[in-house]
Amino acid sequence: MSEMQSTRRGRPGYDQQGILAVAVAAFNEHGYDATSIGMLAERLGLSKSAIYHHFGSKDQILDLALDAALSGLEAVVDDPLPASAVEASAVARLEHVLRGAVHVLIAQLPAVTLLLRVRGNTEVERRALTRRRAFDRRITALVSEAQAEGALRADMDASVVARLTFGMINSIVEWYRPGGREGADRLADDVVAIALDGLRRR
Amino acid sequence: MSEMQSTRRGRPGYDQQGILAVAVAAFNEHGYDATSIGMLAERLGLSKSAIYHHFGSKDQILDLALDAALSGLEAVVDDPLPASAVEASAVARLEHVLRGAVHVLIAQLPAVTLLLRVRGNTEVERRALTRRRAFDRRITALVSEAQAEGALRADMDASVVARLTFGMINSIVEWYRPGGREGADRLADDVVAIALDGLRRR
Repeated sequence: MSEMQSTRRGRPGYDQQGILAVAVAAFNEHGYDATSIGMLAERLGLSKSAIYHHFGSKDQILDLALDAALSGLEAVVDDPLPASAVEASAVARLEHVLRGAVHVLIAQLPAVTLLLRVRGNTEVERRALTRRRAFDRRITALVSEAQAEGALRADMDASVVARLTFGMINSIVEWYRPGGREGADRLADDVVAIALDGLRRR
Repeated sequence: MSEMQSTRRGRPGYDQQGILAVAVAAFNEHGYDATSIGMLAERLGLSKSAIYHHFGSKDQILDLALDAALSGLEAVVDDPLPASAVEASAVARLEHVLRGAVHVLIAQLPAVTLLLRVRGNTEVERRALTRRRAFDRRITALVSEAQAEGALRADMDASVVARLTFGMINSIVEWYRPGGREGADRLADDVVAIALDGLRRR
């Protein structure tokens, strides 16, 4: 049985997740506004009503895709370190979050790409931006905490540090291709090495 | 005489640079495809033929805007360090390039924003992408050289280092607003500090 085949409803072809994946790829390729349900139907080889069977509207498809990316990133910040490190330092938790964010980005590359292009043109986009800002504030708070505990240099604004560090992570969507030379673990190592210890040899 | 007033042709209103600035803002706001010459004419309070007096086509406006951003970045890599440092180490030249790129990005924020969104849909866009890739290769070569001279850690792929470092720099277009808390010099210091020495306090 192919991956594409619905296990949820028995309808041959696409289940909700399959349609979502094709829709996200189309939004990334053509832009959300320029992608119609008719275009998605054609790409999927389905009728428009078959799509509406799974989703109330194009907006709802976007909402679900952005929620998947945001939930993944939020889970990384919520996720405690292994039990042995429950009382881990802020810098250890920051490293854990940077690594986790690289993994989410690579595991959900199309949905995160879509999220990073959201400009707030619709209610769904504005809600996603609000969640992104809340995420950014949590990263900034973690950087502040790591500065206060003396682990990170304190001569930089914590929100600028959070933005530049996540700017580096987010830029991975611009060039990363699955199956490329570096996997997620290696890339997470590189990001942590640059952000925390820098490129200079000591 | 206002800045907007043409010094080139005596026509009141906008000269070529003024029209270009308004066009780039519109491209960034609505997307290049969705922005027509008619929309630009309305925004500028000019006739379409007044715009065509300065530019052969919408494509030519894009071409000039992308060239401005690319020429600025290329000049940073071409630009030698001060005479006293003509034989500067690769790592000193890399630091010089990182700083210079932050300055170009902030000085030409709208044009660089436009450049970073180019996806290669037209001949003009493909030419711009070719120049961006040539720029990236020069940065990668500089990182390799700094690794070879022993100044930078050599356990990371030079092209990944170049991409992550410029990913951090390019992300500045997402949030930087002129007149914000940090100016270009401060932000260039922050980028160099993170990239070369890392956030960890020693």
